[in-house]
Amino acid sequence: MKVKEIMDKEYIFVTPDQDIVEVSLMMEQKKKFTTPVVDNDKCLIGWITSLDVTRGFREGQKKVSDIMHSKDDIVHVHQDDPARLAVLETTKHKVVSIPVLDDNDTVVGVIRTFDIVETLSRLYEIKVYKIFEAMAKELKGVSWDELMEAAAIITRRRTGKRIKPQEYEKNIRESTFGEAIWATGGLEKFFVGLIAIGELVIARKVARARK
Amino acid sequence: MKVKEIMDKEYIFVTPDQDIVEVSLMMEQKKKFTTPVVDNDKCLIGWITSLDVTRGFREGQKKVSDIMHSKDDIVHVHQDDPARLAVLETTKHKVVSIPVLDDNDTVVGVIRTFDIVETLSRLYEIKVYKIFEAMAKELKGVSWDELMEAAAIITRRRTGKRIKPQEYEKNIRESTFGEAIWATGGLEKFFVGLIAIGELVIARKVARARK
Repeated sequence: MKVKEIMDKEYIFVTPDQDIVEVSLMMEQKKKFTTPVVDNDKCLIGWITSLDVTRGFREGQKKVSDIMHSKDDIVHVHQDDPARLAVLETTKHKVVSIPVLDDNDTVVGVIRTFDIVETLSRLYEIKVYKIFEAMAKELKGVSWDELMEAAAIITRRRTGKRIKPQEYEKNIRESTFGEAIWATGGLEKFFVGLIAIGELVIARKVARARK
Repeated sequence: MKVKEIMDKEYIFVTPDQDIVEVSLMMEQKKKFTTPVVDNDKCLIGWITSLDVTRGFREGQKKVSDIMHSKDDIVHVHQDDPARLAVLETTKHKVVSIPVLDDNDTVVGVIRTFDIVETLSRLYEIKVYKIFEAMAKELKGVSWDELMEAAAIITRRRTGKRIKPQEYEKNIRESTFGEAIWATGGLEKFFVGLIAIGELVIARKVARARK
């Protein structure tokens, strides 16, 4: 996934000679805490936040150029950078948004942290039964009921908790991948549980074939 | 995981009678775009953003109470709510932060989107070989080399691409879970690939045992 796939293309931008009163109105109206400052070719030359505007108002500044940070002082990413880079920069610099540039240093979008949250959280929201469905499809000759039975057996072996296959199925229909990895104690442990279930159904399949 | 585990406890707060000039200085100094408004018992009564401050400055307002949003108009979460709820509220309302309350409606923290990004991204940053290590440990009687060989075979079957077990090992040492699910086309497909590898090594183990 690339930066351009998760960036906001409906961003606002300002120019250095704009009046900060006018800019504050636009930022409030569009609910943006930050905005890139661009030249006539829409190339990035700076960045302002609403906190620069409050400082500017207090100190009697007039123009965007009086309050802006220069391009060199801010984080920016390229539209073809991996989305992962924008994520790492967000957490490293604790920013709410990052301007996105093309090869000509033109601003083409803005990465916003809540868009990142939305993208990242999609993975966590996948229902666990989707993974089991994919597993059942992959393991030829193993039925869904056999898989649920094996899952109930493995759960009992690992947690000591008796659970019926029907209850297990109900649980995985309701719970998300995020809940499952938090409940099992991490990605590796969650996956190891799946492998154990896979191993059991395969062992049973082999035993059946031998008879 | 609960809200209190990912909230920022080093938040700032203001009271309704505070002067907005003083508040703007604090928000700039602490680099906070938002702050809860509390009463004398530190109970949440409102919320302001730096965009409310710019509006207040422009319109000649003086006090926090002149510019604040009431508690009823903003999103808030309880410290014992599942962290997932804060994530869903962030993406639903597109906010950069959410106040966190205890049973007495006292503000005990603030959820910030970049903290959520940091928490969510940790899962994506897990190295793929960690999952294989857990798998090798789970599958008794299967060596690491056998696992890599099976992985190379499954890769070839699924993608047509010839890859040596050593190359496969190098790849999984370098790549993250996030990169792997993006490369394979999603969580289910990634897991199915692993299950296929598991099935192959188990089949080979069984075949060995029969001899």
